Amino acid sequence: MRYILCWQAYRLRCVIKIDPEFIKFRFYQGESVNILKEVIENIEPVNREIMRIVEKRLDNLTKPAGSLGRLEELARKVAGITGSECPPVKNKVIFTLAADHGVAEEGVSAYPQEVTAQMVYNFLKGGAGINVLARYVGARVIVVDMGVKEKFKVRSPIFIDKKINYGTKNFTRGPAMTRKEAIRAIESGIEVFEEENKKQKIDILGTGDMGIGNTTPSSAIAAVFTGKKVEDLTGMGTGINVYTFRRKVMAIQNGIKKNKPDPEDPVDVLSKVGGFEIGGLAGIILAGAKAKIPVVLDGFISGAAALIAFKLAPGVKDYIIAAHCSAERGHKAILEYLGLKPLLDLGMRLGEGTGAALGIALVEAGIKILTEMATFESAGVSPKIGVQT
Amino acid sequence: MRYILCWQAYRLRCVIKIDPEFIKFRFYQGESVNILKEVIENIEPVNREIMRIVEKRLDNLTKPAGSLGRLEELARKVAGITGSECPPVKNKVIFTLAADHGVAEEGVSAYPQEVTAQMVYNFLKGGAGINVLARYVGARVIVVDMGVKEKFKVRSPIFIDKKINYGTKNFTRGPAMTRKEAIRAIESGIEVFEEENKKQKIDILGTGDMGIGNTTPSSAIAAVFTGKKVEDLTGMGTGINVYTFRRKVMAIQNGIKKNKPDPEDPVDVLSKVGGFEIGGLAGIILAGAKAKIPVVLDGFISGAAALIAFKLAPGVKDYIIAAHCSAERGHKAILEYLGLKPLLDLGMRLGEGTGAALGIALVEAGIKILTEMATFESAGVSPKIGVQT
Repeated sequence: MRYILCWQAYRLRCVIKIDPEFIKFRFYQGESVNILKEVIENIEPVNREIMRIVEKRLDNLTKPAGSLGRLEELARKVAGITGSECPPVKNKVIFTLAADHGVAEEGVSAYPQEVTAQMVYNFLKGGAGINVLARYVGARVIVVDMGVKEKFKVRSPIFIDKKINYGTKNFTRGPAMTRKEAIRAIESGIEVFEEENKKQKIDILGTGDMGIGNTTPSSAIAAVFTGKKVEDLTGMGTGINVYTFRRKVMAIQNGIKKNKPDPEDPVDVLSKVGGFEIGGLAGIILAGAKAKIPVVLDGFISGAAALIAFKLAPGVKDYIIAAHCSAERGHKAILEYLGLKPLLDLGMRLGEGTGAALGIALVEAGIKILTEMATFESAGVSPKIGVQT
Repeated sequence: MRYILCWQAYRLRCVIKIDPEFIKFRFYQGESVNILKEVIENIEPVNREIMRIVEKRLDNLTKPAGSLGRLEELARKVAGITGSECPPVKNKVIFTLAADHGVAEEGVSAYPQEVTAQMVYNFLKGGAGINVLARYVGARVIVVDMGVKEKFKVRSPIFIDKKINYGTKNFTRGPAMTRKEAIRAIESGIEVFEEENKKQKIDILGTGDMGIGNTTPSSAIAAVFTGKKVEDLTGMGTGINVYTFRRKVMAIQNGIKKNKPDPEDPVDVLSKVGGFEIGGLAGIILAGAKAKIPVVLDGFISGAAALIAFKLAPGVKDYIIAAHCSAERGHKAILEYLGLKPLLDLGMRLGEGTGAALGIALVEAGIKILTEMATFESAGVSPKIGVQT
């Protein structure tokens, strides 16, 4: 039904808002959004029936009902997402998407812009935080160039080139990217996921980012969607001082004032004040949900991407597991807006997917509880007093 | 100095309080407390110098300083505990101590008492929650019978018999155990640790418990030490109803009233309203601190044991890492009293060491960050603007 409506809107070459509760973006005349549309249209609800079955099993394991708290919640949720009573957690992939940001020239970061490219090389050599934590939890890292200001001449099995452009434009002066680039960014994320998933079925994915200056567009996106004040959504990023902080807040305010992003049109928001890696991550989130795979969300930048994905297809929410609450101010507001309760709160604010890596380990622990624990009957343990076996 | 004072107190056969800030228990005439005394006297301060060295290294890794939050704090803490810049985390052991409780006959639990023994068999077969989570984080489980109401005829490499008695006595009618038994319980815990550590050097330990009814003595211990109201420290245990809850609160209040445990004398508190596994865990905590090994604390029952250990030797605090905040009411108050900030808050309340297992994984993640990440120099990444290399 939704599909037909959308298709007709496209054919009629008109700008309409279709079912505002479900699809919040407009298909403009001539826009090539086939990949994106196909994904959005095919995100199904999670399987509540399997969740009920799994809940019964969890209650029959040798422990007081519910006594493993959120580990049990995770097991239930992943069962619902995957539609499996015994979800596999073997092929764990963290997608770390990198891009540069024109707004960095406003002096909003504590690090020079070349660090984005340098960190990509660091990822490929395995020396970054995400490499260490991904190795520890048994996940693979896939590094994607979504728009770094560097021509990478690397051949690596973990590197994917989806460069949209050499960094976005400074959004204080005009849109960060064209609308076409914004759609291309989201669709590239979808492609990255689908190509990897085709090679080897992914069981669980984590999101990650790298991009000097990228807390700035993330705060802008959060401000546009949540309607909260920019100051309350802007944090210290990589560790800026109070003067840089003021510049950052002003840059975001100016960017929003100048470009007037439409909160009802997530592609518009992405193009005007977003970033290429943010768009790519939105695509990965959407594609993961379509493929019925748990999406473990990292910190603030991933949160901004989740807002874009959620505004395009609210159903993605049930596929997202918020790994942690970042120390970056504004992340909490994003999670509250999305109605997601983070698993961890360890004062982390590195990004790269480091929080997602730890979140994946907790999800796996929950699944192992579901699949490896003995039942009262199998272990010969007496049930709760007053409970019939 | 402390040693000489204590020894003289013992020789003079008098009851004195020595340096109340450091040693809060009395050596009574004729008490055999050699093992315990030796451990308490030999808990050294953590190595602050190594902590500073490690902090410098952490700040030089390819990430904004402090951006991995509590993972970095864990790396620093474990370096200080072990006195090593590169602490090993190979031999991970979770000690799950089991015992029964006379106060169970007051109807304070949702499960029949035989479940304690049944769960010990479940541990030995590998089907319990702690087995699953310990396996997942690469830790071994050692199951210790500290006083279960069952004669175990088992031979298992992971089972240790340190039975003090067949369950404690009902503390609403008199002391839960004799003073001698209380000391024996703590010393048995010390022996368990030291024997295991002798066989194969332990790198990190987790505490765990099993004992139907054992949230009741734990609440009593917490009430005696923190001075807070019993109602505020008593929770729903394995899932009791409101009537059982009232009985439980009354039993604890009656036990404290009847036995008058002296909060300045932790052995007195343990003997009057404690449990054998709680005493054993206190011993393990003390012995771990003496051996300079990080002690990852599980939930509420382990918290009560930590109170006993802390009151015997306040220096243990620096060796303890609080894995999580249990859903059991009262645990938060214990952690606040000890000045410990839990790593996780996942609504767990199973005990067994399940929270400690997840905590161990986070500690290991922190150590891996310290030991496996590249530095700015080695990765060729530019430092923060304005920072000289």
